[in-house]
Amino acid sequence: MQVSFTQAEVAAIACPSRTTGATTETIRGIASLGSAVPGDISFLGNPKYKSSVASTRASIVLLPPDYAGKPGPNQVHMAVDNPSVALARLCSRIEQSLWPKPRPGIHASAVTAPDASIAASATVGPMCIVESGATVGERANLEARVFVGRGSRVGEDSWLMPGVIVSAECTIGKRVRLQPGVVIGADGFGYEFVLGRHEKVPQVGTVVIGDDVEIGANSTIDRARFGRTEVGEGTKIDNLVQVGHNCVIGRHCMICAQCGFAGTVTLGDFVVVGGQCGLAGHLTVGSGVKIGAKSGVKDDIPPNTSVWGSPSMPLLLEQKLTVLRHRLPELFKRVDALERHAGAGPG
Amino acid sequence: MQVSFTQAEVAAIACPSRTTGATTETIRGIASLGSAVPGDISFLGNPKYKSSVASTRASIVLLPPDYAGKPGPNQVHMAVDNPSVALARLCSRIEQSLWPKPRPGIHASAVTAPDASIAASATVGPMCIVESGATVGERANLEARVFVGRGSRVGEDSWLMPGVIVSAECTIGKRVRLQPGVVIGADGFGYEFVLGRHEKVPQVGTVVIGDDVEIGANSTIDRARFGRTEVGEGTKIDNLVQVGHNCVIGRHCMICAQCGFAGTVTLGDFVVVGGQCGLAGHLTVGSGVKIGAKSGVKDDIPPNTSVWGSPSMPLLLEQKLTVLRHRLPELFKRVDALERHAGAGPG
Amino acid sequence: MQVSFTQAEVAAIACPSRTTGATTETIRGIASLGSAVPGDISFLGNPKYKSSVASTRASIVLLPPDYAGKPGPNQVHMAVDNPSVALARLCSRIEQSLWPKPRPGIHASAVTAPDASIAASATVGPMCIVESGATVGERANLEARVFVGRGSRVGEDSWLMPGVIVSAECTIGKRVRLQPGVVIGADGFGYEFVLGRHEKVPQVGTVVIGDDVEIGANSTIDRARFGRTEVGEGTKIDNLVQVGHNCVIGRHCMICAQCGFAGTVTLGDFVVVGGQCGLAGHLTVGSGVKIGAKSGVKDDIPPNTSVWGSPSMPLLLEQKLTVLRHRLPELFKRVDALERHAGAGPG
Repeated sequence: MQVSFTQAEVAAIACPSRTTGATTETIRGIASLGSAVPGDISFLGNPKYKSSVASTRASIVLLPPDYAGKPGPNQVHMAVDNPSVALARLCSRIEQSLWPKPRPGIHASAVTAPDASIAASATVGPMCIVESGATVGERANLEARVFVGRGSRVGEDSWLMPGVIVSAECTIGKRVRLQPGVVIGADGFGYEFVLGRHEKVPQVGTVVIGDDVEIGANSTIDRARFGRTEVGEGTKIDNLVQVGHNCVIGRHCMICAQCGFAGTVTLGDFVVVGGQCGLAGHLTVGSGVKIGAKSGVKDDIPPNTSVWGSPSMPLLLEQKLTVLRHRLPELFKRVDALERHAGAGPG
Repeated sequence: MQVSFTQAEVAAIACPSRTTGATTETIRGIASLGSAVPGDISFLGNPKYKSSVASTRASIVLLPPDYAGKPGPNQVHMAVDNPSVALARLCSRIEQSLWPKPRPGIHASAVTAPDASIAASATVGPMCIVESGATVGERANLEARVFVGRGSRVGEDSWLMPGVIVSAECTIGKRVRLQPGVVIGADGFGYEFVLGRHEKVPQVGTVVIGDDVEIGANSTIDRARFGRTEVGEGTKIDNLVQVGHNCVIGRHCMICAQCGFAGTVTLGDFVVVGGQCGLAGHLTVGSGVKIGAKSGVKDDIPPNTSVWGSPSMPLLLEQKLTVLRHRLPELFKRVDALERHAGAGPG
Repeated sequence: MQVSFTQAEVAAIACPSRTTGATTETIRGIASLGSAVPGDISFLGNPKYKSSVASTRASIVLLPPDYAGKPGPNQVHMAVDNPSVALARLCSRIEQSLWPKPRPGIHASAVTAPDASIAASATVGPMCIVESGATVGERANLEARVFVGRGSRVGEDSWLMPGVIVSAECTIGKRVRLQPGVVIGADGFGYEFVLGRHEKVPQVGTVVIGDDVEIGANSTIDRARFGRTEVGEGTKIDNLVQVGHNCVIGRHCMICAQCGFAGTVTLGDFVVVGGQCGLAGHLTVGSGVKIGAKSGVKDDIPPNTSVWGSPSMPLLLEQKLTVLRHRLPELFKRVDALERHAGAGPG
């Protein structure tokens, strides 16, 4: 992967409202303020790092409009509305060399069923398997070693990374991005305890992944017991997340790594779930809810509220309880003193 | 996958003790009470949803014997001992079309060692690898892209979903079901700190999975340091669970998603472990124990008890402590008042 | 896998400082003290099991120098400096038969790009894919079904187990061991919320894994947003761990199963992280830090300190708070009594 931008090329992409200083360096890398060297571009995305701007060795620095400092020698400050977004635009350009456009067609080593429907513009990479009745849409890219089971559908422009498994009868929307090792449509975890044994409840439903969804590496989305498990349009799911059978995740949610959703959890839209949260079965979480990291949720959550803790509580209450817990040593001492004062202490 | 049942066919499978009403609809789907439409069958499996029966649009509803309401027009109520079990029987019928019987034989793209022993009735799907000395039993099904390492054995009627990896010298029982991405027999996590470095302790044991075990997608069961890691007959393990080296999980346990067992944990039989629990190394958990979700267990647990929390406590005590924690703000105020009363407050 | 050692052969490997007793048994297995039978070797690695030495049926027992008991009939006690290390040496010998030396060369079923550089002494097993511009070093072993993406490098003597995925432009050091299902270089989880949607921030950085690193089954190490995500030399990572984009994990760390690191976490050297911990983004953890299992860390941690809890606290404080929490029922009663005494109680 090669990066090479002149100052003028960066300006054309970042569209700064103000530029101070100049550099003769060609930009060959991107780095954080602290680790940048001449030839790198850097940016102030998080105010926490503001004090590092003055000492950075980056040749170009993207800064918010209100940053007041001056560039060093052979250094450029570019003021932009949102330095993170400006950097992202630059990265998009680089991305095209990291992930070159795949060549359409089916690799000789792939195994595809005669009655699978694979668009001529789609790419089916080495060692992929596309089973009977499956559909792969226009410009979809099954990178390598991807499995698409009987009757499943992969939408237009979706990108399935190496090792992805889509089990039978599942539906993947358009522009979906499944990272390596994602498993869509494994059996839900359902058993009835009959005569001293756990008897399997057949899981005959399916999974439907909406458009523009992204799912992180080795995450698992189980098929429904019946009906469908759903992930709504635009929702982003991080790595190693478990979504149980019959969950309905809304649109434009953000679900951080290692969260787990038991069966039949319903999430509204624009829900944010911090890392390592667990949600018990049959819960309803309203739209706009924020759940703090590591929370354990066992009750429904009304829309547009924030919760935290395990078991989770309204955020402000949980924060207060956390503070009071830290004051327990003091409280015990105060009660000791009161008892001494009252002559009522033990012993 | 196609579903099509008449009322009479449903009755023949569900064996109701009482039927009220009638419908001319052909059943083409299964749905929850709230989301069913005409042509669906639904059921009351969880009393929580009882009030939804009256308003459901399902054409057939499976109900417990004591349900007293009447069906609507063109709707049938069937009273059965256990609506969930009756539905499961119906789903089993559907399952046969979702997962058609695999054709025995070895796919042309599979790589199998000349000295591997593969039953004639077994199926070895596309891109599977069966190494030297491995055994695949009668009617076993390696769906696709399954790896069975040197000297490992897969029992009769077991079903290994796409992407499953069984490392060398492991044993998989009969009628075992391994969901996609399961890894059996990765090295245990064992090191000795010698001269400032972590030196690997060779993991030369194996894994033995009992009959009728099911393991969820992307779960990992590590090989023993020596001897064997075991999962007992009939135990069900959900997705993304980690079982460390030398663990011995008993029979008929239920282990929910994302649990982790450090090394040499011993579980009795019929243990239930909620989601995202962690158990420290070298623990013994008695038979019949129930561990609440998200618990962190660092002590042995006697049989037939329930624990919860992190560090986990007897369930009733943990519940009490949780309640008292929520009363901390009140307690602080009460101590403030006592101090004022005693004239003994700080300052 | 076959184990067969005479007493003399064991002595030659374990180098005991003192031997008591003798046995005519051939050693054919390794077992814990409690489960050993004649023909097994066992050891006292954890003082917790000291009382089991007297009753073990093992034919040879490796013991610390200060163990005072006497062997039974046809039984040998060998005193060694560190029984665990002595056993490990024995296991190394066994390991060579469990994992025979792979034969160099590229399997006929592998797909390798013409411009990939694969050392003649390397092994590329069945169904492996090595993409354009990738490098596989001397004696490296891609066991089976391993994916090495465009421009990535696998160092000398590294061993990639079945199903490992190394995405484009990543670097794997020397003598690295990646367990089955590891994913290196999936996209980091980065989005900007723009006009009501989460827009992907391109992840154009890479991953660099140092020498002698081991990573457990189905763990995921994300590529950097830009620059690199790093895992330092000698660090060992257990199964199902998530390392977010731009994390820098130091050298010789031990990271237990199911931990999660959000983006841009920096860990020093020799850090130990217990199972199921979560670390928030942009944290710095000093060298020599120990983090207790299930901790939730949201603040920087100074070097050589121990923390525990969620949110994590200095270890001793957290232990004290845990004790006081268990004394809450008593505290409430004491405050009740004080209120009665003061005549100030509610009601």
